[in-house]
Amino acid sequence: TKIQKQTQKGWTKVSCPCCVSDRVDPLVLVRLGQKVRPETKRWIIKLIGSPQKDGGAALLAHPGEDASGDIIVVSAPRCTLLRATEELGLCKTYSSGEMEAFSYDDKDNFKDSEFVTLAERQYIVKYELEGVRAQKDLRVPGLSDDYTLQHRDNIWQKLRAAGVIVDMFPLHNQDQLKDLSEAWYCGNQLAQPLDSVNSYFGSSIGFYFSFLDFYTWSLLPPAVLGLAIAYFSVSFWSHMSMSIDQDASGSAVGGHMIQAVFSMFWSTVFMELWKRRSSSLSYRWGNLRLAERFAEPRPGFYGNLGVNPVTGRVEPLFPEWKRELRMALVSVPVVGLFLGLVVLGMLVFYWGEAQVQQLHQHWDSFHTQVLLYAPSVLHIIYTNILATVYKNVAQALTEYENHREESSFQNHVTAKVLVFTFFNYFAVLFHIAFYKQDVPLLRKRLASLLIITQLVNQVTEVVVPFLVDRFISASNRKENENDPEEDKYRNQSTLPAFPGLFSEYIELLVQFGYLSLFSCVYPLTAVLLLINNLTEIRSDAYKMCKLFRKPFSPPVANMGVWQVAFEVLSFVSVVSNCWLLLLSPRIQRLCTEGELNSTNILLLAVLVEHILILLKVVLAVLIPDEPDWIRKKREHMEFKSMQALRTQVTHSPESTEERLMHLNWSVRVEGGRLGLQVRVRVEG
Amino acid sequence: TKIQKQTQKGWTKVSCPCCVSDRVDPLVLVRLGQKVRPETKRWIIKLIGSPQKDGGAALLAHPGEDASGDIIVVSAPRCTLLRATEELGLCKTYSSGEMEAFSYDDKDNFKDSEFVTLAERQYIVKYELEGVRAQKDLRVPGLSDDYTLQHRDNIWQKLRAAGVIVDMFPLHNQDQLKDLSEAWYCGNQLAQPLDSVNSYFGSSIGFYFSFLDFYTWSLLPPAVLGLAIAYFSVSFWSHMSMSIDQDASGSAVGGHMIQAVFSMFWSTVFMELWKRRSSSLSYRWGNLRLAERFAEPRPGFYGNLGVNPVTGRVEPLFPEWKRELRMALVSVPVVGLFLGLVVLGMLVFYWGEAQVQQLHQHWDSFHTQVLLYAPSVLHIIYTNILATVYKNVAQALTEYENHREESSFQNHVTAKVLVFTFFNYFAVLFHIAFYKQDVPLLRKRLASLLIITQLVNQVTEVVVPFLVDRFISASNRKENENDPEEDKYRNQSTLPAFPGLFSEYIELLVQFGYLSLFSCVYPLTAVLLLINNLTEIRSDAYKMCKLFRKPFSPPVANMGVWQVAFEVLSFVSVVSNCWLLLLSPRIQRLCTEGELNSTNILLLAVLVEHILILLKVVLAVLIPDEPDWIRKKREHMEFKSMQALRTQVTHSPESTEERLMHLNWSVRVEGGRLGLQVRVRVEG
Repeated sequence: TKIQKQTQKGWTKVSCPCCVSDRVDPLVLVRLGQKVRPETKRWIIKLIGSPQKDGGAALLAHPGEDASGDIIVVSAPRCTLLRATEELGLCKTYSSGEMEAFSYDDKDNFKDSEFVTLAERQYIVKYELEGVRAQKDLRVPGLSDDYTLQHRDNIWQKLRAAGVIVDMFPLHNQDQLKDLSEAWYCGNQLAQPLDSVNSYFGSSIGFYFSFLDFYTWSLLPPAVLGLAIAYFSVSFWSHMSMSIDQDASGSAVGGHMIQAVFSMFWSTVFMELWKRRSSSLSYRWGNLRLAERFAEPRPGFYGNLGVNPVTGRVEPLFPEWKRELRMALVSVPVVGLFLGLVVLGMLVFYWGEAQVQQLHQHWDSFHTQVLLYAPSVLHIIYTNILATVYKNVAQALTEYENHREESSFQNHVTAKVLVFTFFNYFAVLFHIAFYKQDVPLLRKRLASLLIITQLVNQVTEVVVPFLVDRFISASNRKENENDPEEDKYRNQSTLPAFPGLFSEYIELLVQFGYLSLFSCVYPLTAVLLLINNLTEIRSDAYKMCKLFRKPFSPPVANMGVWQVAFEVLSFVSVVSNCWLLLLSPRIQRLCTEGELNSTNILLLAVLVEHILILLKVVLAVLIPDEPDWIRKKREHMEFKSMQALRTQVTHSPESTEERLMHLNWSVRVEGGRLGLQVRVRVEG
Repeated sequence: TKIQKQTQKGWTKVSCPCCVSDRVDPLVLVRLGQKVRPETKRWIIKLIGSPQKDGGAALLAHPGEDASGDIIVVSAPRCTLLRATEELGLCKTYSSGEMEAFSYDDKDNFKDSEFVTLAERQYIVKYELEGVRAQKDLRVPGLSDDYTLQHRDNIWQKLRAAGVIVDMFPLHNQDQLKDLSEAWYCGNQLAQPLDSVNSYFGSSIGFYFSFLDFYTWSLLPPAVLGLAIAYFSVSFWSHMSMSIDQDASGSAVGGHMIQAVFSMFWSTVFMELWKRRSSSLSYRWGNLRLAERFAEPRPGFYGNLGVNPVTGRVEPLFPEWKRELRMALVSVPVVGLFLGLVVLGMLVFYWGEAQVQQLHQHWDSFHTQVLLYAPSVLHIIYTNILATVYKNVAQALTEYENHREESSFQNHVTAKVLVFTFFNYFAVLFHIAFYKQDVPLLRKRLASLLIITQLVNQVTEVVVPFLVDRFISASNRKENENDPEEDKYRNQSTLPAFPGLFSEYIELLVQFGYLSLFSCVYPLTAVLLLINNLTEIRSDAYKMCKLFRKPFSPPVANMGVWQVAFEVLSFVSVVSNCWLLLLSPRIQRLCTEGELNSTNILLLAVLVEHILILLKVVLAVLIPDEPDWIRKKREHMEFKSMQALRTQVTHSPESTEERLMHLNWSVRVEGGRLGLQVRVRVEG
């Protein structure tokens, strides 16, 4: 197509012969600062182009329209892609039809060479660019001397810091995008094209949509149950016409219990089944044996140089205990402090409301009328400020903890923010449920929360996008006449950056919380959530494809910390449900009427709770986390690598070592007898 | 020494030249049935001696004094040992000083060839003998035709069934034994020679003694605390002289709480630290990467022949789901039934006691006097019968579950018996604590139980052994004049077989139970246990060395199911402790005097319990299960095997294959570029 033709000329030369191909498709766009000198741009392009042994990124660079323009288009030659695929530990389909950890030396035995997905290719480009380190002290042409690079400095970071590189994002592939969007949200098909989502957007996003899908479908049973209960409670009411309140309580109890116990087991089974699905997905997507901890540490990672005992490479090292110490003595207290602030805010809010009420009762005037809203408004403002501050604090804290792997860094950030946000959402509900012990209020609150979130979601995720799209697509159309590619790229760079999956996940988590923690007081929860998620899937898909830049997404093997969060929640749900059952109006009435001794009731509840938790644990242990066939495949891989290790003579005498230096690592780890034979060849 | 000289002649020939050595030390004794024909014995010896490719065991056999004698002494040539060492996945010290999974091809790079410990060698002999399968249908000379072997029959099992082989046990090595016992229990040293215990008796026994050691030392803190509390409560009492009962309650509370909370955290920290110790032991003993699941299935394992998807070997296969089904539908219900019977027995016992009491009160006579003891006597008999029946049932059930690995078989048997025994021990205490809610009675019961177990242990484990030893050692002395080796062996075979570690472990578990579950009602528990264990270590060691035959012990990586049992217990302890605190006299009095609302107290207790459990979980998660340096070593191994796998071309074109045949496998596993170079060399 036109894209290729245009971009053919002007690309830097590939270093190795095997990578020469007639088409180079642009993968990543790098935007430079406005007043970056041409020589600097040339230098960067050269850096990107030159092979890794010369300290380059071994990628392909294109200066865009003219040498002075502020963009660089980056692509990757085949060899670099394959080597990185091996380094990241991705699995690919072997000639035998199984997934095998990809090996560069063995590349011909893997099915078709185009298997590196777009998302992976773009991530690899990012990985290579951010991995480039200065091999000696050098100064960047066209930059002032205070930006000279020391040995082993991370060049990309320095350039960002110097404002030379202002932006970097992967480019959409319009053809693939079109196909994807048609298969995803245009039609009214039920199933999502998860595999192509994974290959286009990457596994982290693939996992999110798979989970959303799985979660939505597993909402069916509770939804049906909820409907049934709601129906019966209503009919029950119509028969013996009491006052609504009494009825609500009277009938609710039956439903209550069923709902509570059901939702407790449902949540466990749901999570266990998801784990199985997740592991089979990660096998299918080749992320089962990611080798992140064996790869280079993340750019931000610091420490004094040393030999990594695991890989034997020279890289910055940072002792584990130091990290743990920092977590224990810094992170934990700070997070605790913020949680405290949330509680404080809530208490002040309640206190304020009480004050205002009194005031209003004393002199009932318009002013006091207005004043009634003051506390809630202030509280909302307070909470939002707190949240934004906390986000940055969490980021800083995790930077300070200095994690080696990107994934663990992400997990720790997420975990911190997660705890806070969750607390923020649920503090009020817990306060009502456990402290005020006011079930009707809880029911009202929950219903309103659910409906509000519904509306808010629909608006923010469907209506707004639609409106935005109106005029963005318009501008797209305007541009689609054959004007240079570069403008198209510029257009993409005008789109807002993808905010990440946090907000999406937290939304699901909060939903799940409403459902598993409190649903028994409001049977229709599941139904509302089901409806919401059905639209959610589409709107999220639409957002991903149209409204944001394409995000980088690293290959991941599972949902990471989110999985844990959901599991924890499903255990907390047992406690809250038992408690709510205890508070259920009928039992309360029995107690007040003295038919039952409240202490014994309480004891019973505690007993039931313990048994249920025990059952949940047993259930969780009994349902294996991965399907049998995955286990077999994994063990097969382990067996093979064990065999490989055995049939290999690892340590070889020094002399050989030195002689073999110029042969690649895969030979160096070989040796002994073999080393000798090779030496013969090298000498002769 | 004499042993070698005598046993030199008469051994079967070694098949491979490299194994010829001037000394063969006897490892295992096989006892044949009385009326086994000489030809049968010859056939068996031939079987043991012939190499594996001819369906033999590739071991060395010695017919004992004369060909018609009823014993066969078995030893193993070096090659068989090394191959088995590799197959079992044992790690050994590499020339680099690190532990590496042993590889036969690379054997020269491992430190001294004598590293296969005695226990391992003896286990390997057992492993090889029990692994021998008939390669074609054949009939054993001197046996009736109904014992003909089908293809792939397990020969050893058949011979046992036919009564040809009545017994098989490893032989003591008197010299090593002497050194060991001197270092172990003769002197009054504190530390045990755990490494030599492991190398002489094997890792499973090594782990038991390590755990006993670790456990005993970690009893110090609670013991000190207990003493302090006891002391203060007494002094407290002497000051304000109340009636003992009131005091016990009054003062107990303070100690109570401290003790309870302390023991809860102590148990967690103890278990976590043990896990770390255990993992470093298993690294040190080379059992970190046991490859049992990749080895042949256990002899008892049945299923229809198929290709194992993991190893690609042809062997009996049995679907996982079938096993799970059998567990769920057969094992679980049966176990439940027996637990039910225990409870039933207890209830009947209480009922009976009540009846007898009444009877005695009505007509107080000598007969009724005697009758008073009837219930307890009957109950004891009942329990014992139940226990013995259950043991066999558990064995049968696990056989029926048909586990592939020996270890998982053992774990499942242990787990079943464990649950039952534990229930048996604690049902009464729990009944008193939770149902009768009678703390003083609980205290009395606990004290008496502790002291009784003390006495019973001391008697059974020190006095009896001593007496037995008196005359056994006497007979030994009588025999020690230079009469043939064979009689020495016969003497060993007269010793009782080692009953296994179950009773030892369960004793520790029950102790641990008393301590963590109920200690807060009887502060001196820890002290008593500490004293008991200090003698326990010695008496157990003595037992192992002198009073039983040397047991076979397979290499294991940890305590298996026992670890789980201890952990579970430490969680249950939270519940019981909180409950006991709730029952503590002072609080009870407060409630009765109406100073406190019992419901609120209860709520508080529940809250505290949940928080404590949460803290325990957090603690258990935070303390990593293996020390940092072990983690690094493990990851290093993983990394190396990953590398090995990558640098290996599994499917290389035939021609190359053939050309490279004469080069060793370690070249074949290399490939790609390198493969080419080597080929060039071969051609030129």
